[in-house]
Amino acid sequence: MSKELRPKARVAKGFRDVGPDEIRGLRSMLATIQQVYEGYGFEPVEQPFIEYTDALGKFLPDQERPNAGVFSFQDEDGQWLSLRYDLTAPLARYVAENTQGQLPTPYRSYRNGWVFRNEKPGPGRFRQFMQFDADTVGSASPAADAEVCMMAADTMEALGIARGQYVMKVNNRKILDGLLQVLGIEGEESAGRKLTVLRAMDKLDKFGAYGVRLLLGKGRKDESGDFTKGADLNDVQIEHVMAVLLNQPYAQTGSQHAVDTSVLESNALYREGFAELDQINALVTAAGYGPDRIRIDPSIVRGLEYYTGPVFECELLIEAKDEDGRTVRFGSVGGGGRYDDLVARFTGQKVPATGFSIGVSRLYSALKLVGQAKEANVLAPVVVLVMDKERQVDYWRMVMTLRAAGIRAEMYMGTAGMKAQMKYADKRGSPLVIIQGSDEKARGEVQIKDLRLGSELAENASREEYASQRLAQQSVPEAELVAAVKKALA
Amino acid sequence: MSKELRPKARVAKGFRDVGPDEIRGLRSMLATIQQVYEGYGFEPVEQPFIEYTDALGKFLPDQERPNAGVFSFQDEDGQWLSLRYDLTAPLARYVAENTQGQLPTPYRSYRNGWVFRNEKPGPGRFRQFMQFDADTVGSASPAADAEVCMMAADTMEALGIARGQYVMKVNNRKILDGLLQVLGIEGEESAGRKLTVLRAMDKLDKFGAYGVRLLLGKGRKDESGDFTKGADLNDVQIEHVMAVLLNQPYAQTGSQHAVDTSVLESNALYREGFAELDQINALVTAAGYGPDRIRIDPSIVRGLEYYTGPVFECELLIEAKDEDGRTVRFGSVGGGGRYDDLVARFTGQKVPATGFSIGVSRLYSALKLVGQAKEANVLAPVVVLVMDKERQVDYWRMVMTLRAAGIRAEMYMGTAGMKAQMKYADKRGSPLVIIQGSDEKARGEVQIKDLRLGSELAENASREEYASQRLAQQSVPEAELVAAVKKALA
Repeated sequence: MSKELRPKARVAKGFRDVGPDEIRGLRSMLATIQQVYEGYGFEPVEQPFIEYTDALGKFLPDQERPNAGVFSFQDEDGQWLSLRYDLTAPLARYVAENTQGQLPTPYRSYRNGWVFRNEKPGPGRFRQFMQFDADTVGSASPAADAEVCMMAADTMEALGIARGQYVMKVNNRKILDGLLQVLGIEGEESAGRKLTVLRAMDKLDKFGAYGVRLLLGKGRKDESGDFTKGADLNDVQIEHVMAVLLNQPYAQTGSQHAVDTSVLESNALYREGFAELDQINALVTAAGYGPDRIRIDPSIVRGLEYYTGPVFECELLIEAKDEDGRTVRFGSVGGGGRYDDLVARFTGQKVPATGFSIGVSRLYSALKLVGQAKEANVLAPVVVLVMDKERQVDYWRMVMTLRAAGIRAEMYMGTAGMKAQMKYADKRGSPLVIIQGSDEKARGEVQIKDLRLGSELAENASREEYASQRLAQQSVPEAELVAAVKKALA
Repeated sequence: MSKELRPKARVAKGFRDVGPDEIRGLRSMLATIQQVYEGYGFEPVEQPFIEYTDALGKFLPDQERPNAGVFSFQDEDGQWLSLRYDLTAPLARYVAENTQGQLPTPYRSYRNGWVFRNEKPGPGRFRQFMQFDADTVGSASPAADAEVCMMAADTMEALGIARGQYVMKVNNRKILDGLLQVLGIEGEESAGRKLTVLRAMDKLDKFGAYGVRLLLGKGRKDESGDFTKGADLNDVQIEHVMAVLLNQPYAQTGSQHAVDTSVLESNALYREGFAELDQINALVTAAGYGPDRIRIDPSIVRGLEYYTGPVFECELLIEAKDEDGRTVRFGSVGGGGRYDDLVARFTGQKVPATGFSIGVSRLYSALKLVGQAKEANVLAPVVVLVMDKERQVDYWRMVMTLRAAGIRAEMYMGTAGMKAQMKYADKRGSPLVIIQGSDEKARGEVQIKDLRLGSELAENASREEYASQRLAQQSVPEAELVAAVKKALA
């Protein structure tokens, strides 16, 4: 093919390849999460990667670009299909499609898988990433919410994140909805403004109290000069929002700000929200989960508009240094909440539901940075070198003998000479290579070369140089190959 | 939401949801395959689900509809993106992108994952399915091909498919290319016709020798009256093709048909093809893999046009009855071959490569039908019933005690009464439920009800009826809950 017709080999923008260490690390992490979820009685179920676009709804954070956010394409019959952007919307479709008694009620399930966002990629921000979800559908009980929080806490500890290194924060959307009712922001026509207020509150971590005040008011200009239009609340409204947002801890509600909280207390939704938090708090406390693990926090908002009750966010409190020596705070590694209206979108009948989603890719990065990511301990294969191409079958049989003994092994498959074969084994991270040239063959022996001991020489050393390295190399009778390799690996 | 605005809850056409049994069965099957591949020294690597369309190339079987077959969409910058339709094309892109010494040579890797085809779905034919691939890139040695065949055979046996129940068939595209050269079908301008001949040969299983002759000649009309245009070969050409196609076994080449085989034997590619098969045969025989496991078979063609040398197909020989009592032959559960030009598409430099792909979804269906699919043995959770809503915290603590002892357990999360709770536990397949009403509480006891013993009554029985079933139900002191549950589960 002529050069100008050749495509360039490049991974698509916002996507990435995943290597052996991460795959093995993720495998071990996913197995741990799975074990915790199974212990709680959840069952696996998986929906496909592609759904009808109308079934996914429009629950992505970025409401201003309704067609952006998801990857979509039209089917031959004209119907629009989309790649899933989370695991919750497909689950809601699945439950709505199987309401005729096929599923137990409540329906408790878990799943993990890749999801896709058609968004602008950035550093550490990809368009394909993995989530691990668990949901209880068909229960309105705060016990279901409390359980989700405990399960998230257990998961963090099972992954090696100690108490004090994470916290599961809980709030209730009903409190925020009640607040907005009191402020007169309600009904279909205020949906956009409501979302603007919630998003402003959600930015406390990022922009601080002053930034949030700007976003609740006229708007905020960032360092680059870009202006974000605000919710256009008046000063009294802003004070009420800030009073609710900053009332930390939960027990001190109403004590810090010059706001008439009685008007809030008189709102039914607002009171209901706190009552549910009380129940969740009582249950987790009874189960021995103190505020160091699960904590009520009025600043938790969650961006998605579909939440209807308790919302959760799991925050890592560990700090670490990144490659450039900068301190990194990880923040949220998962979140969730109650979404009582998602199934009703299809069926018209309210089906209370609550769930939690771990950002697997994000959590894995965090664990890796703090040295908590467990790599599955897989030794690279023993490589049998091809010293004499005519004797390939002999080397082949050595490999089979090693494999039959449960030892990872391979014959060198290329055409290069001894030096390149050593380089290959070194690059693979092989612990040992097996060498049998004509001399060894004549003596009925094999050489076992330990690359871990002699690795500093591997780059350029000749065979003679290796031979002088007695510690790193030994000759054994061919019949003792397996025993000698096992001993060297032990 | 008003009814007419509600979307219908339906899984997209050609896609499906996957339940717990299949997920657990697949998990166990994938772990087995992985273990075999790791033993052979292959390392995991994964490419993303989405690639630039030009990087995937046009290697799908259906060349007549070049834009069909893959799900594609345009990125914001105008570049076309596609969902991967196999795992080989993305691997070729990955290797071509990482040629600057980052990867060992040869590069031995494996991966499993979902792939997507935008094709017309049919019974058992989905638009999302899973493949499990292993590839050796950077080795031209027939040993690499032989190894792939042995690994596939080992995999089948590790999955419980005995010798004689499967066979790995091997052929060489060079034989077919040599044949086509002899017949004067070569060069860019004959690419389409060449593919038509290969596809016709590939249909021997489906249409028999007579059907293949028609497809090699003017064409073939099927039962429905649809006409498939043939390759338009003349009678002599057809006889040559059939001679190569039907020469079974391999050792009898040229002995059965009235064809002058000397003209074939004089073709260099044709001879090279057989010479490579001889080498593969020698290696697998030396390793103890007889023709009951790995067999040269001239009828193996493989539909994909990118193969350049040895091609493989793993066929299940087991027959089974489907749900309607019909005999099902499974046929191919995996295939592969040598694709020396795929990386060169990007780099211009030939990189010899060979690999094998298991159709995971297909193999799993086959294993299930013949009773060889191993379900991971996961017991459904013990359910603690909520007899008194005020005592939720007590039930909650029982669940925690059971879980702490390693027993899968959950508290009933719904709001329904005793009967519905029993139905729930039954539907979950729970082995035991734990009951503590006010009477049991007063006595400091819990009831353990074994649903496996009493399941025939579970549908309609009242609590009193259960109480009379002494075998299926027992009272124990609350302090002995864990011990009693463990004993009942043992």
